[in-house]
Amino acid sequence: MSQRPDTPLLDTVATPQDLRRIDKSRLRQLSDELRTEMIDAVGSTGGHLGSGLGVVELTVAIHYVFNTPEDKLIWDVGHQAYPHKILTGRRDRIRTLRQGGGLSGFTKRSESEYDPFGAAHSSTSISAGLGFAVANKLNDRPGKAIAVIGDGAMSAGMAYEAMNNAEQAGNRLIVILNDNDMSIAPPVGGLSAYLARMVSSSEYLGLRSLASRISRKLSRRVHSGLEKAEEYTRGMVTGGTLFEELGFYYVGPIDGHDLDHLIPVLENVRDSEQGPILVHVVTKKGKGYAPAENSADKYHGVAKFDVITGEQKKSSGGPPNYQNVFGDTLAKLAESDLRICAITAAMPSGTGVDRFARAHPERAFDVGIAEQHGVTFAAGLAAQGMRPFAAIYSTFLQRAYDQVVHDVAIQNLPVRFAIDRAGLVGADGATHAGSFDVTYLASLPNFVVMAAADEAELVHMTYTAAEYDEGPIAFRYPRGAGVGVPLPEKPEKLEIGKGRVVREGSKIALLSLGTRLHEALKAADQLEAKGLSTTVADMRFAKPLDTALIEKLMRTHEVVVTIEEAAIGGLGAHVLTFASDEGLTDAGLKIRTMRLPDMFQDHDDPAKQYDEARLNATHIVETVLKALRHNSAGVAEARA
Amino acid sequence: MSQRPDTPLLDTVATPQDLRRIDKSRLRQLSDELRTEMIDAVGSTGGHLGSGLGVVELTVAIHYVFNTPEDKLIWDVGHQAYPHKILTGRRDRIRTLRQGGGLSGFTKRSESEYDPFGAAHSSTSISAGLGFAVANKLNDRPGKAIAVIGDGAMSAGMAYEAMNNAEQAGNRLIVILNDNDMSIAPPVGGLSAYLARMVSSSEYLGLRSLASRISRKLSRRVHSGLEKAEEYTRGMVTGGTLFEELGFYYVGPIDGHDLDHLIPVLENVRDSEQGPILVHVVTKKGKGYAPAENSADKYHGVAKFDVITGEQKKSSGGPPNYQNVFGDTLAKLAESDLRICAITAAMPSGTGVDRFARAHPERAFDVGIAEQHGVTFAAGLAAQGMRPFAAIYSTFLQRAYDQVVHDVAIQNLPVRFAIDRAGLVGADGATHAGSFDVTYLASLPNFVVMAAADEAELVHMTYTAAEYDEGPIAFRYPRGAGVGVPLPEKPEKLEIGKGRVVREGSKIALLSLGTRLHEALKAADQLEAKGLSTTVADMRFAKPLDTALIEKLMRTHEVVVTIEEAAIGGLGAHVLTFASDEGLTDAGLKIRTMRLPDMFQDHDDPAKQYDEARLNATHIVETVLKALRHNSAGVAEARA
Repeated sequence: MSQRPDTPLLDTVATPQDLRRIDKSRLRQLSDELRTEMIDAVGSTGGHLGSGLGVVELTVAIHYVFNTPEDKLIWDVGHQAYPHKILTGRRDRIRTLRQGGGLSGFTKRSESEYDPFGAAHSSTSISAGLGFAVANKLNDRPGKAIAVIGDGAMSAGMAYEAMNNAEQAGNRLIVILNDNDMSIAPPVGGLSAYLARMVSSSEYLGLRSLASRISRKLSRRVHSGLEKAEEYTRGMVTGGTLFEELGFYYVGPIDGHDLDHLIPVLENVRDSEQGPILVHVVTKKGKGYAPAENSADKYHGVAKFDVITGEQKKSSGGPPNYQNVFGDTLAKLAESDLRICAITAAMPSGTGVDRFARAHPERAFDVGIAEQHGVTFAAGLAAQGMRPFAAIYSTFLQRAYDQVVHDVAIQNLPVRFAIDRAGLVGADGATHAGSFDVTYLASLPNFVVMAAADEAELVHMTYTAAEYDEGPIAFRYPRGAGVGVPLPEKPEKLEIGKGRVVREGSKIALLSLGTRLHEALKAADQLEAKGLSTTVADMRFAKPLDTALIEKLMRTHEVVVTIEEAAIGGLGAHVLTFASDEGLTDAGLKIRTMRLPDMFQDHDDPAKQYDEARLNATHIVETVLKALRHNSAGVAEARA
Repeated sequence: MSQRPDTPLLDTVATPQDLRRIDKSRLRQLSDELRTEMIDAVGSTGGHLGSGLGVVELTVAIHYVFNTPEDKLIWDVGHQAYPHKILTGRRDRIRTLRQGGGLSGFTKRSESEYDPFGAAHSSTSISAGLGFAVANKLNDRPGKAIAVIGDGAMSAGMAYEAMNNAEQAGNRLIVILNDNDMSIAPPVGGLSAYLARMVSSSEYLGLRSLASRISRKLSRRVHSGLEKAEEYTRGMVTGGTLFEELGFYYVGPIDGHDLDHLIPVLENVRDSEQGPILVHVVTKKGKGYAPAENSADKYHGVAKFDVITGEQKKSSGGPPNYQNVFGDTLAKLAESDLRICAITAAMPSGTGVDRFARAHPERAFDVGIAEQHGVTFAAGLAAQGMRPFAAIYSTFLQRAYDQVVHDVAIQNLPVRFAIDRAGLVGADGATHAGSFDVTYLASLPNFVVMAAADEAELVHMTYTAAEYDEGPIAFRYPRGAGVGVPLPEKPEKLEIGKGRVVREGSKIALLSLGTRLHEALKAADQLEAKGLSTTVADMRFAKPLDTALIEKLMRTHEVVVTIEEAAIGGLGAHVLTFASDEGLTDAGLKIRTMRLPDMFQDHDDPAKQYDEARLNATHIVETVLKALRHNSAGVAEARA
């Protein structure tokens, strides 16, 4: 580990109160030290580097000008909040970021009073800020809400809905649009283009001085007809028109790395009688750290890296990531099938759609952070004969649940859902875990729901989904690397609603859905060693169930255990429902369902998360043994 | 029934092909006849009258100008599509609207090739239209997509996401903004205000002629700096700026009842090389039928009415509607509890929030069609110490599922969800049924999920939710009138996670969640008459389960049946999961779960829907008897 950087001024700042006692002229130095500290910390922990570096000065300026934590500062998304964490009493733990038991990679209410609202999914900050602002207004309490939101997050409809409702907050709500030229993915859509056009215009350079003039004008703004016209014309030049139409006072753009501009503008905004105000700040992601500045997205979420060279510590070779297996498979299928399209919501590399896009650019669609639109767009494509794949993380598909129900399932349209990051996700924690998709999809009529046990299965399921035109079909697979099985030369079309018996036994039956298959096989070995002959089935489908296989296994085994990396309501619930409907348990059968626990699991090593979730081979064996020990009265003998 | 109106010209139009053969000069007459026919039809069936009357001329003009069904016409929301249905081969069935086996009250793919996309939830049309347009573009096929969307629907973020992505469609996508001054509820939010301001401006009257000039200018538009400035200034006057910023060519506003303006503009738009284009059309809801024109929202969704007087056929007295019981209860509680707030998403009267708003206007928030924002706004209010109630229909809460998970459940914030229209909804059909909420909420950690068995229970649950500050809590209740029990003088605070035994028995136990309680009691009577002593429990909570009660009933009864008006994954699945976890079924127990079937049920009489769903007393009795007949091998003797 490298020696800690020298940070004499930062060392005097434990909280924002300390910060506010520093002379303005020294804030530049403080920012530089904060930046150095952050690079060093993330070098040792991994995490999101570029976003935090881009808002170092903004973080200093906001805490300097506003009265946090009474004023509520909401970072949208929280991964830009590392400098904020350092300044708000968490510097001593900053090198525990994203480690088990350590600081979260996002803002988190339970972590600090300076985190009034957790934000790990994008575009929530304005709505939440409005809630704080209105609550204070109703109670005639002081306290403003400041939402800092990136330009990418503005592509989500939710941000627009919030802006459209913000007028009632008056001067209690301030939105800071953090506009940087290095989004997670290349910016898409009309708004981003609009912002980019504006920022790159020749007028921009002259605007630094205009900005403070505009903010000085704020309090004496009048809305007579002529002035309104002027305002719109100015808005066109400065980028504010859209926001002004939604009822905001627009200030900007200003240089987000220049404290001499930031602080007076924020002071004016703080003291303005008018509102809500949108301050348009232009920043550079990765600012001040060359490797991050020069990288398009490598430093969005990074592994640990060497601070001097910027080189990221790579894991050695190993099996390919699921997302890439999906992207490559789909790209290959699309060579001969011109109907295949791929849709991503601002996650081209995270979903592997980037690989598809390189081969078939005209059939790849990045809709921005707009899952709702993405799913219904896919439904439209399907209705017109295409074979669209909506590749969306499990947790983000929640954003489009109504579209999944109303536009896809009810109309029985063949949209394919490639659900990445299904199950536990390690360092990203509860907000990014893909826990609920099996439950919320398998309850829908018309839906087919699959889960891949390994990367070879993912190849088959991608192909099966492509070939399935009868209605909606989803397949889920986890974050990270495959298990290392060879990829099939030729993808196989799976029979819908049929599982496969991977190992034959006679006393215990383990019914696995998805990635816990390998733990189930390990458990079977251990059970076999205890003389308990064990069948292992990879169910492949949560819906439709392979009822013939389930009934057969139930009739021939003493204990049946389902295992899945999903919340209650998934495979286990469907198997139990089928079994009770059919009376298969009337005369007694030991069934147990293993699933994700009824809790939001904190970020941690995946291995520890599985252990906490009780989804490892050890727990499967324990569950079986405990079931066997239950006596006929249904009471575990171990209890007595 | 009144005599059918005289419609000689309309009688010659079976399809849009016939329409296109009519001389332009006679389209006015056709529109008048179409309007008369529609009023007469809805008078006999009930349904949405005002929206359809507002788009009679627009419907005629679109089918006249565009080549439907090759050009895809998508109505957002489909309840404005009655005139469209009459013109597209469904006139003979128009008096079956919303009746069992008859036409749907919305557009529906299975009903006609002229309904390319079903739309019953708002704001989906632009996304879907973009899908059609892009599919045609990829395949180099002809065919445009025309989305007709109301100004209210524009408040949803999804519409904004779609517009932000629409540029790629070029001239294949046309959005017609149907801007009327009589939305479902008084328009809210910045956009609506903006539109209203513009429409009411003195410039508007002069714009009818400007509109055609603008549309003529379309093809020779240049984007040099100066012209851009002029365009923005004009945009300010005409309302187009917002749309132009999102990449649309804006045309309008034009009078949506004047065919002499509509048709040439639509022809120009159809033939334009530029796109996507937004045509801003101003209409009057209820146009041409005085009772509808003069009513603020009475004719949104209406009962059958007398065509001459406009008087609606009321059902006689009877118990109050659930929504009003909720609204009145909450308004009363809020008198002494200043923390209580109510949030609705454009459904103030549908949710009863209007009653709350009359008593506490400053604490009532109508966010527009913006459920996502509404839920996170409520989370912000809760985080700042308020007691917010988000009153949202079950089916529309799907729009905010990610916000429920990410902003409310993960942060364990005490947002109260008053879930109206839970279960089957009769004439509104599958798109409005509240089938999935128990499943998608009870799978979430931290959540409390209740269901009211009757209107008295709803009073208790509203109070219980108000007093519960530990985390999120939801209570669901059905559409329509209560069962007629007296309302309690004083609301009672229910113990969280505790059910109540309504009737004591010894052999059969019926575990009911929500409104099927009364059918369960009826079934108990019938079972008792057969000598089968029956316990009936109102579980009240799907989560947390009353495990003590369930275990006791399972240990003392021979057959246990759960009953709920919800999809798989709800109470039944939770009870089965608990029972198998605890080994309660190891030695044999006849458990059955009754729930909504695995299908999207078409609109029909509620009674028939319950029958189809097999959720009546008769089916409960059948289920019990069949379970008793199952022999010990788990095979129903009846099968043999």
